[in-house]
Amino acid sequence: MSRDVSNRKLRAGIVGGGRGSFIGAVHHVAVELDGEAEVVAGAMSTDPQTAAASAKAWYLDRSYDDYKEMAKAEAGRPDGIDFVMITTPNHMHFPVAKAFLEQGIHVVSEKPMTFSLEEAQELVKTVENSNLVYALMHNYTGYPAVRQARYMVRQGELGDIRKVLVEYIQDWLMAPEEKAGNKQAVWRTDPTKSGIAGCVGDIGTHAENLLEFITGVKIASLSADLTTFVEGRLLDDDANMLLHLENGGKGVLTCSQVAAGEENALNIRIYGSKAALEWHQMEPNTLIFKAPNQPGQILRTGLPYMSAEAKQLTRLPPGHPEGFFEAFANIYKLVIEDIRRVQAGQQPVGGYPNVYDGLRGIQFVYKAVESSKKGSVWLDM
Amino acid sequence: MSRDVSNRKLRAGIVGGGRGSFIGAVHHVAVELDGEAEVVAGAMSTDPQTAAASAKAWYLDRSYDDYKEMAKAEAGRPDGIDFVMITTPNHMHFPVAKAFLEQGIHVVSEKPMTFSLEEAQELVKTVENSNLVYALMHNYTGYPAVRQARYMVRQGELGDIRKVLVEYIQDWLMAPEEKAGNKQAVWRTDPTKSGIAGCVGDIGTHAENLLEFITGVKIASLSADLTTFVEGRLLDDDANMLLHLENGGKGVLTCSQVAAGEENALNIRIYGSKAALEWHQMEPNTLIFKAPNQPGQILRTGLPYMSAEAKQLTRLPPGHPEGFFEAFANIYKLVIEDIRRVQAGQQPVGGYPNVYDGLRGIQFVYKAVESSKKGSVWLDM
Amino acid sequence: MSRDVSNRKLRAGIVGGGRGSFIGAVHHVAVELDGEAEVVAGAMSTDPQTAAASAKAWYLDRSYDDYKEMAKAEAGRPDGIDFVMITTPNHMHFPVAKAFLEQGIHVVSEKPMTFSLEEAQELVKTVENSNLVYALMHNYTGYPAVRQARYMVRQGELGDIRKVLVEYIQDWLMAPEEKAGNKQAVWRTDPTKSGIAGCVGDIGTHAENLLEFITGVKIASLSADLTTFVEGRLLDDDANMLLHLENGGKGVLTCSQVAAGEENALNIRIYGSKAALEWHQMEPNTLIFKAPNQPGQILRTGLPYMSAEAKQLTRLPPGHPEGFFEAFANIYKLVIEDIRRVQAGQQPVGGYPNVYDGLRGIQFVYKAVESSKKGSVWLDM
Amino acid sequence: MSRDVSNRKLRAGIVGGGRGSFIGAVHHVAVELDGEAEVVAGAMSTDPQTAAASAKAWYLDRSYDDYKEMAKAEAGRPDGIDFVMITTPNHMHFPVAKAFLEQGIHVVSEKPMTFSLEEAQELVKTVENSNLVYALMHNYTGYPAVRQARYMVRQGELGDIRKVLVEYIQDWLMAPEEKAGNKQAVWRTDPTKSGIAGCVGDIGTHAENLLEFITGVKIASLSADLTTFVEGRLLDDDANMLLHLENGGKGVLTCSQVAAGEENALNIRIYGSKAALEWHQMEPNTLIFKAPNQPGQILRTGLPYMSAEAKQLTRLPPGHPEGFFEAFANIYKLVIEDIRRVQAGQQPVGGYPNVYDGLRGIQFVYKAVESSKKGSVWLDM
Repeated sequence: MSRDVSNRKLRAGIVGGGRGSFIGAVHHVAVELDGEAEVVAGAMSTDPQTAAASAKAWYLDRSYDDYKEMAKAEAGRPDGIDFVMITTPNHMHFPVAKAFLEQGIHVVSEKPMTFSLEEAQELVKTVENSNLVYALMHNYTGYPAVRQARYMVRQGELGDIRKVLVEYIQDWLMAPEEKAGNKQAVWRTDPTKSGIAGCVGDIGTHAENLLEFITGVKIASLSADLTTFVEGRLLDDDANMLLHLENGGKGVLTCSQVAAGEENALNIRIYGSKAALEWHQMEPNTLIFKAPNQPGQILRTGLPYMSAEAKQLTRLPPGHPEGFFEAFANIYKLVIEDIRRVQAGQQPVGGYPNVYDGLRGIQFVYKAVESSKKGSVWLDM
Repeated sequence: MSRDVSNRKLRAGIVGGGRGSFIGAVHHVAVELDGEAEVVAGAMSTDPQTAAASAKAWYLDRSYDDYKEMAKAEAGRPDGIDFVMITTPNHMHFPVAKAFLEQGIHVVSEKPMTFSLEEAQELVKTVENSNLVYALMHNYTGYPAVRQARYMVRQGELGDIRKVLVEYIQDWLMAPEEKAGNKQAVWRTDPTKSGIAGCVGDIGTHAENLLEFITGVKIASLSADLTTFVEGRLLDDDANMLLHLENGGKGVLTCSQVAAGEENALNIRIYGSKAALEWHQMEPNTLIFKAPNQPGQILRTGLPYMSAEAKQLTRLPPGHPEGFFEAFANIYKLVIEDIRRVQAGQQPVGGYPNVYDGLRGIQFVYKAVESSKKGSVWLDM
Repeated sequence: MSRDVSNRKLRAGIVGGGRGSFIGAVHHVAVELDGEAEVVAGAMSTDPQTAAASAKAWYLDRSYDDYKEMAKAEAGRPDGIDFVMITTPNHMHFPVAKAFLEQGIHVVSEKPMTFSLEEAQELVKTVENSNLVYALMHNYTGYPAVRQARYMVRQGELGDIRKVLVEYIQDWLMAPEEKAGNKQAVWRTDPTKSGIAGCVGDIGTHAENLLEFITGVKIASLSADLTTFVEGRLLDDDANMLLHLENGGKGVLTCSQVAAGEENALNIRIYGSKAALEWHQMEPNTLIFKAPNQPGQILRTGLPYMSAEAKQLTRLPPGHPEGFFEAFANIYKLVIEDIRRVQAGQQPVGGYPNVYDGLRGIQFVYKAVESSKKGSVWLDM
Repeated sequence: MSRDVSNRKLRAGIVGGGRGSFIGAVHHVAVELDGEAEVVAGAMSTDPQTAAASAKAWYLDRSYDDYKEMAKAEAGRPDGIDFVMITTPNHMHFPVAKAFLEQGIHVVSEKPMTFSLEEAQELVKTVENSNLVYALMHNYTGYPAVRQARYMVRQGELGDIRKVLVEYIQDWLMAPEEKAGNKQAVWRTDPTKSGIAGCVGDIGTHAENLLEFITGVKIASLSADLTTFVEGRLLDDDANMLLHLENGGKGVLTCSQVAAGEENALNIRIYGSKAALEWHQMEPNTLIFKAPNQPGQILRTGLPYMSAEAKQLTRLPPGHPEGFFEAFANIYKLVIEDIRRVQAGQQPVGGYPNVYDGLRGIQFVYKAVESSKKGSVWLDM
């Protein structure tokens, strides 16, 4: 695409996200939040009527019955979309991304990046061979406090990372929701749509990504114990893992979708040789810094002592809470800036999860499943 | 206006909100957040260059140098704005609102409603004589947990309201920011732009409004003690008040803009003859319910036990924090639905702060200032 | 008394505290907690059988039917008590204190110091004319975090004190417990035993004392609004007050015994021209320090950065919670050290609430009651 | 012993606890807190001068240079001690316990029960063959909220236990304190005094004990990863473990003494098929109950809805915080009641950790160390 995108909002398309979808609506709000993009076209459902009704409800200019048709048509229009948002179930992430990339359209995709490891490896190549932006929606990296945490680790304020405790626990699959027809639950617990893992793929990957994003340290190996607590469910709904980090640090990752009373508890504690950090997604504007024999510190987004990269992703003064949508929108903010750069012939600068993070997430899922099957043996990642 | 607004986004205009404005940008995000309206025109500054640059930065279709010209022009266009958002300093709220109402354009205004009591009384009449929606942006009433609190009080879960402790404390005016040229501080501490009160008008009114909104009980009288702590400041920057409620209940209202280390702490505790509620704006998705000899309850937005009116204003599942923008957007959501109703010839249903709430806010400010001057005497509201 | 108290535990007596008493048992635990004193004698009830049974249950050496008899007898014994603990209802505080002081026995008394202002003034003189230790049990000043707060204010870390918000709220008198025969409630709501105030005397005085103890700034005047919410109750069960501090600062004091769901919420926030402190009795080992544009700090008892006076009153390493008994015991620790000094012919050093604090508390109660009766007029203290 | 202990305080002896000891002083406060026992004799140090000075500082009647001599002498006195408290380093727990048990004296011992597994097995037999009370000081089981948690699990309020997350993290060994001569650190990191494990033995056992105490479910097997982060240290200072519970549940146990900024963070979360519980030792009077689609509940000690077994161990009304000493004293309370029963010829009722819990703790340490050495293999407990 050599389209000029300066002096106008970017035009976005969406695949998936039809009525009843949760994440499609989130992308809609997030992508438009800063007034820098507008959703104008969609292939929002495989059911043509739902697709049309969903597009109308969003006042879209153009609705398609099929994502391939959409990719082709939009690429051919002078007012076609600049990028596409992929918000389908997991098994469609890869083919949709490929279709749009091949038409020269930038991509923002829901995670996990692909259904299988092979697809992930192929997508890496596709993106490498393009001159296009590909972003993976690990939205939790969009929180300013998470950026601040990463900054403080990089500055050496924690010393060497020794121990990381990361957890992502929810309760929404405590009952066999998939049998009750809950659309979100049905595909997430279906191996043909979700992939080889349930909970580990759906939320464990966010925990894995967050750990590596903040610390800058890779997980070297893992020993996993996956469980399916709800009778009849085909995929794991809970997992505990021991981690070895590449720098000699240790870790624990636990995730669950059957943890009674937990809403969306993504929490991380990082202990270094000098100090520690603690962050809780459900109170996202607070970052706790702890050092031995010093008063604990409560860092808050919006205040002048925050780092430039945290401030860049903060829209409001302190005490005016920003949340999930804003963090999501922060990924879009960075992506949109990069699309503008690429379209202007400049180099993208990144700062959002990309195709390599996506590949790593798929590898993590595969290793966790294999380790657990083999009796929690240690496997290198 | 007899314009048909079905099957399209509403078109919004903005007065004020030019570069350097805080609240203008908030309105921009909030009004568009649900994809039901789009800002297309503005008179964003009294300085023509700033106005034009601000409008361009937002990709607006039309920029005006003057709000009166804008009101007239937009009213005359077939694609003119459906409503205007007023985000100027206080002294302009009234003339701008009047200008657009007189052109048949719906209004959403920042608070306080007007500069003076006389203006407030006149505006009430103007709105009463129109068939237009007028909404006042007491945005904190947009939080779902606040709606839940109101619902629970109405349901009688607290019994008779006995004691209310409401506070709104910040620290951003601890130093003489107005002398340092902080644009927000300059007009807020200038009696010719802010009105007869500083802190009491700026944030005390939010506390007063929140108390009455949730409890449904009016403040009958007050005894106030206003202070200006920062030397040379012309208006109050701190106030404490005793309250008598119309039902025999008692209360305390405290507000400050010089409370070291406080960000935007709007907090309320309501004690009834049966039970109590507690809410903190900085952790807005949590509502605490306390009854004697029972475990305290933590109610959380997004969960099925919440009331219909709280759910209606919640976009995300539990644990996915919604914040300041979303609450703000909730007021717009209710307003936009009412504008659609009015344009379709139906009755508006309200649910957002209106011109009577605005009048009450102005009265509150006047009584507080007078009581304090007279030695904290009790004055009826 | 010229008794040698070195190389042995001090011997304590108790008046009041018989079966069913709450505070008597607390004194028992607290006075012996450090192994520096032992309760050996008591006049624990006006009912001889209860007195004897209560003394036996505590394994006391000597039980008396009458406090006057006890004072005389103990003063005459070589192994008599070194000090007495007064844990009776309010109306007995004065005569009991006087009786023991006149026998040369040191006194630790429950608050309020006396039943009436006249008694308070007389007791001041009695103590001044003795060479004895008189301590008033404002136990909340015994918390190490409270001492730390006082230290930080003294060090100037807050700058000038501008605003204090202090509150003490409970719910245990929400129902007419006095009619149900609750022993604690019966005398506390009986003007012939409690004095001219209910809630204000019982807990409001703790709030007043805490404010002055930490800030070192006196309340110059107050405007009070007392309420009796429970029908048929003879004394106030709730109060709100505006405060003027002698240094030009302002304050709010609120107390209640009918605040649904509140346990024993004594909370204080102190805002200065440079920084602020916040402390909550129900989480007593934490002190929060807040300064503009700096991360909030969480100070915790037991850590090396705490002041010497906080450390002196801390027995355990950080994270090993100390609570109500330990704070109570800290007052006894300071008192016992002073009694040892006086008995050794040295000067007492104080550090615990004394007869002047007691007088001030009584004045506070009188002024609050009078102000409220006169329509919340400002009265100098 | 056929001594009559009715109508008097019990007499306690102490081994260890000399000057500079932390835990000895805690036992002193705790055992006497309820006024039901008094420490009268001790062998407080292997250094005779320290022993004598320590005993004098506590006003003990009798000081011994040697615990064997003490056991013999006390057993022979008509006013000899009724029970002994063992507060020495780990390697002495077994011989001291044995010496006193053989003299017919009841024992309360610090954990871990013994230095080695062999000793533990022998001690079980010794106790079984005696008619004496043996209690192991897992003091955290003394908190009323922990008892409440156990009660609620037993009542079936959580359903089947599915997942337990238990952690005990501190930072006091972040630096090589043992090289700086910190007495507590020296023996705890010395394999000849501490045993085969460091952190796992010192605090990991508390976590293990707490998990089994509350849930009533045994750990079936574990996979452990122990680390020594501080260079030159001879024992582990950090560990992560995966757990399989005997009922099919899963768990994670993590402990650390090098977790920057952590004080004494013993935390447990228990997720069942119906609901969950959460407890934090550093805020011990609160127990959080969470069930899907219901408001979270905050249970607080001292309130009427608590179970009888929680109330039995609560001394104060709600909101009057009880802490570490009081929980410790609760174990003594139960033990003292049992000693009174046994001395009166009745059956003991237990309720405190005993010799079987002690054996289990030692087994846990051995299995954790072995699993870690073998590459985190699963080992049955």
